[in-house]
This record gives sequence, structure tokens and C-alpha cells, in this order.
Amino acid sequence: MDLTTLIGLAAGACTTLAFLPQALKAWRTRSTRDISLSMFLVLVTGVALWLAYGLLLGDLPLIAANGVTLLLAGSILLLKLRHG
Amino acid sequence: MDLTTLIGLAAGACTTLAFLPQALKAWRTRSTRDISLSMFLVLVTGVALWLAYGLLLGDLPLIAANGVTLLLAGSILLLKLRHG
Repeated sequence: MDLTTLIGLAAGACTTLAFLPQALKAWRTRSTRDISLSMFLVLVTGVALWLAYGLLLGDLPLIAANGVTLLLAGSILLLKLRHG
Repeated sequence: MDLTTLIGLAAGACTTLAFLPQALKAWRTRSTRDISLSMFLVLVTGVALWLAYGLLLGDLPLIAANGVTLLLAGSILLLKLRHG
């Protein structure tokens, strides 16, 4: 695996893992007032499109990162929709 | 410009624009209590790495999206650091 792919995977690990503490925090506190609904609606759409882009390119970092991010950001969106 | 690049640019537009309402909300309310600091620390690192990955690949959607996202997510991080 070349350096470029490793950088891509490190990038994907960061931007994916970033949503884990936010998902856990929203789940634990049931408080999502300061979270922007518009942000997560647009974000989940974008992550789904990045996943499609990665699949079209056959690009491993894009596919791996955006597949997992879609699950995490989707969970935060559901919690925001439930708790307002 | 082929369909794949257009999908990538649409993906980038969404995941970049997603941070705009959150940045404006945090700026307007000065309230960032429900925003996870860990999320934005890891996210900003990841977006910087995605930008490096895009530059190494010469991939327009990755460069454009992550350049702008770095500015927006960086602003949210600064507001969180200031307002707690």
C-alpha cells in the first residue's frame, strides 16, 4: 500500500471517528439543542454522495470512511430528529 | 467533466455546506455546550489529511471540498474553544 493511500486511510479514520464522540454525547445526554439540524441533513446527503463517488472510482479510503461515517452521522441525525 | 466528477463535486458541496449552518449557529448563539470538542479536534485533523490526499491525487472534488471545509470546521472549533 503506497503512502498516498495510507494518508487517505488516516484522513478517513479521523473524519469518521470524529462523529463517534458526538454520537455518544447525543445518545448519553439526549440533548441536541445546540446541534444544527440543517447541518446533519445536508451532511448525511453529502456522505452518501461521497460513498457513491468512492464506489465509482474504486477508491478504498473513500469507500471505507464514508460507509462508516454514514452510519454515525445518520445516528446523530435520528437523535436530533427525536430530541429536537 | 464526467458524471463521476460531478457526483464528487455534489458530494463535496454537501459535506462542505453542512458546516455553514453549524458555524453560523455557534457564532450567533455563542452556545456550543452540546457540541463535542473531541469531534471537532479529530475532524479538523482529518479534513486537513483529506486535503493532503486530494492534493497528492490531484483530485478536484477532494481539494475543493476539503479546503473550504477546513475553514468552516476550524471556525467551529475556535468558537467551541472560546465558549466551552
